Amino acid sequence: MAAGYLDTAPVLLPTLLGSPVVTGPVVAVVGGGQLARMMTPAATALGLGLRVLVENPTTSAAQVVVDAPVGLPKDRGAVQALVEGDGERPRADVLTFEHEHVPGEVLAEVLASGVPVRPSAAALIHAQDKIAMRRRLTEIGVPCPDWAELPDAAALSRFLEDHGGEAVVKTARGGYDGKGVRVVRSTSEVVEWFAAAGIGGPALLAEAKVPFVRELAVLLARRPSGEIRTWPVVETVQADGVCSVVLAPAPDLDPAVEAAALDAATRVAEGLDVTGVLAVELFEVAGRSVGPAGEAGARVLVNELAMRPHNSGHWTLDGAVTSQFEQHLRAVLDLPLGDTTPTARWSVMANVLGAERRELTEALPEVAALDPAAKVHLYGKDVRPGRKLGHVTVCGEDLGAVRERALAAAAVVRGDSTHG
Amino acid sequence: MAAGYLDTAPVLLPTLLGSPVVTGPVVAVVGGGQLARMMTPAATALGLGLRVLVENPTTSAAQVVVDAPVGLPKDRGAVQALVEGDGERPRADVLTFEHEHVPGEVLAEVLASGVPVRPSAAALIHAQDKIAMRRRLTEIGVPCPDWAELPDAAALSRFLEDHGGEAVVKTARGGYDGKGVRVVRSTSEVVEWFAAAGIGGPALLAEAKVPFVRELAVLLARRPSGEIRTWPVVETVQADGVCSVVLAPAPDLDPAVEAAALDAATRVAEGLDVTGVLAVELFEVAGRSVGPAGEAGARVLVNELAMRPHNSGHWTLDGAVTSQFEQHLRAVLDLPLGDTTPTARWSVMANVLGAERRELTEALPEVAALDPAAKVHLYGKDVRPGRKLGHVTVCGEDLGAVRERALAAAAVVRGDSTHG
Repeated sequence: MAAGYLDTAPVLLPTLLGSPVVTGPVVAVVGGGQLARMMTPAATALGLGLRVLVENPTTSAAQVVVDAPVGLPKDRGAVQALVEGDGERPRADVLTFEHEHVPGEVLAEVLASGVPVRPSAAALIHAQDKIAMRRRLTEIGVPCPDWAELPDAAALSRFLEDHGGEAVVKTARGGYDGKGVRVVRSTSEVVEWFAAAGIGGPALLAEAKVPFVRELAVLLARRPSGEIRTWPVVETVQADGVCSVVLAPAPDLDPAVEAAALDAATRVAEGLDVTGVLAVELFEVAGRSVGPAGEAGARVLVNELAMRPHNSGHWTLDGAVTSQFEQHLRAVLDLPLGDTTPTARWSVMANVLGAERRELTEALPEVAALDPAAKVHLYGKDVRPGRKLGHVTVCGEDLGAVRERALAAAAVVRGDSTHG
Repeated sequence: MAAGYLDTAPVLLPTLLGSPVVTGPVVAVVGGGQLARMMTPAATALGLGLRVLVENPTTSAAQVVVDAPVGLPKDRGAVQALVEGDGERPRADVLTFEHEHVPGEVLAEVLASGVPVRPSAAALIHAQDKIAMRRRLTEIGVPCPDWAELPDAAALSRFLEDHGGEAVVKTARGGYDGKGVRVVRSTSEVVEWFAAAGIGGPALLAEAKVPFVRELAVLLARRPSGEIRTWPVVETVQADGVCSVVLAPAPDLDPAVEAAALDAATRVAEGLDVTGVLAVELFEVAGRSVGPAGEAGARVLVNELAMRPHNSGHWTLDGAVTSQFEQHLRAVLDLPLGDTTPTARWSVMANVLGAERRELTEALPEVAALDPAAKVHLYGKDVRPGRKLGHVTVCGEDLGAVRERALAAAAVVRGDSTHG
């Protein structure tokens, strides 16, 4: 009855004798930035394999992903090898992205080889090409700012005439964090963009400059079988065209505006057949503004789309039952989606954009002492002016205090000399 | 004034030209099980390097840690190489553990080489050797079950006589999850343990079998500079000597018992000079029981200690502002500790002990559909009967419902055929 002395033998023995580990589903991700990096905790918890195509061996994600082959998103061979695996590594169950910069023909090859691509190339085009996006949103009746394609400078002149002499000119492709976007009052301000477009550069479009009250974002996830789950509508605050602060949920949100925002985002998700996380950035406009089709009463206008985890959803890592990163993995694997309920009354996320120090971890003693509840996320990136290097989220009951604390903690991480 | 077309150039360019990434502090960890695995999200968020000595290249932690050299904890060369690094990898800033099975002489060498060891070998001995632990706790007046060293069978006979014919006999070293522990009424039941002790096997001790009301655990962290932060006292439920369920906080906890538990744990942390996370498992006893020194009124008795993240603290990953894994990293680096406030009224963690299926990720569709708010953590381990393969945490307002949901989700992960 009594077991022998061996039942007290070192516990390591079974591990040493262990048979090969059976592995779960493998998600292949194109792009080695912080968005792929922040997918790792959820992949680890759910026992998923995460295989990330990184631009170089020291990128943000490469530092923390075991299976991180090096290659460029436009390299068909690299992307195909990412999903195929080899003798050591199993074939991926799905291919997804942490940015939009993957050519459609590369995705078509992956799909032809039998690995699902989520979001699909047909959906992703709307996050890659702003003209395709505006056309499609207009078709499905999603409220947008007034807009026009700009085949030439004359088209911009006409658009300026029709819109009070001011317009937002964008490159259809290649824009990012305020790049490829310019507010102009004259065609001469984008003359080199027209020249570039004439020799194969990105096409241009104009959008009416919207007199918005504030910017909102709706984050949701949709799985191939159609289930959608949405996080609360948030307010985003931009600085120089880059997301700086996110307030979750958006304070003092008019229920009609909230409903309009959720409706627009859901229609985008379904109308464009998006799978994975979708971020819809919107302008909240005052009173009874006029939508693109002339309809009265549109209170939100869609500004931008992203079909991947998005900066407006970083707060979910610390302030929601299911983070956007876990949800993206669940969605692209067609798993039932997670609960999106916030775990705190308010969450405020503040980006760390550039820094006054070279090594951000040097800030840890000070920021940890300043605010024991501040959740600090560093991306392992080299410091450059304005670059997204990390973020801080603070959760709590009082919005003003939470916001102040998040900003103070982010300032400490940056090493701002103005911070006392 | 207007920037050129290049300001819309591919965003990958800066990454490709990036200079080498400056790295933050490096924490070296001995042991490649799930406790090291679950340190990865916090290390990633804080930008810390995590270097883990794994027993083989497919262990739980090896699957998700980029820097995971293979070696055994008792191998001086392997442990020394872990902290020293090489041309590619910087020297570690601190050495810590995910289990207690590291010989003191190995740790002494690391310390002599200038790398701090936290907890220190002098503290860790109390988590390695139950006789050393009982001696020290008795010295500093921490309430324990009555106990005695057992140099021979006669000593056990005397102990049985003095304690109603029943005793818990333990091996001083090598015990784990109910192994090395036996409830006996006769010396014959552990005769082979005495024989083993006589030829160099672990020494033995006897403890009075405590008629406890329930088991509690206090989890705290202490940093070298002395700061201590404690999570709420939890109730632990054991099955066959293994932690099965944790209720956080412990329901209906008498404030006097709570105070006694916190006091005992704090005295252990300070008296043994523990750094890092400390788990103190206690028996809650009814009414006015008698402590080891004969003092009346002791309502808790210390059962076991662990100086590392512990199963009783897994709920903190999903139910507290700062998880035990983040806190352990902060503590061993002597960073200010994080807020330990729960983020939900109740958190219940249920272990997945063994399984009826070979590949646990196959349960993800069913468990995700059953409970969208269940937080599933799989450890990437081969299935064996009774083995800790994962856990599920559910948070919420109603304890009964939360407990039921956690158990149901864990049963689905296990693949219990009884589950409907």
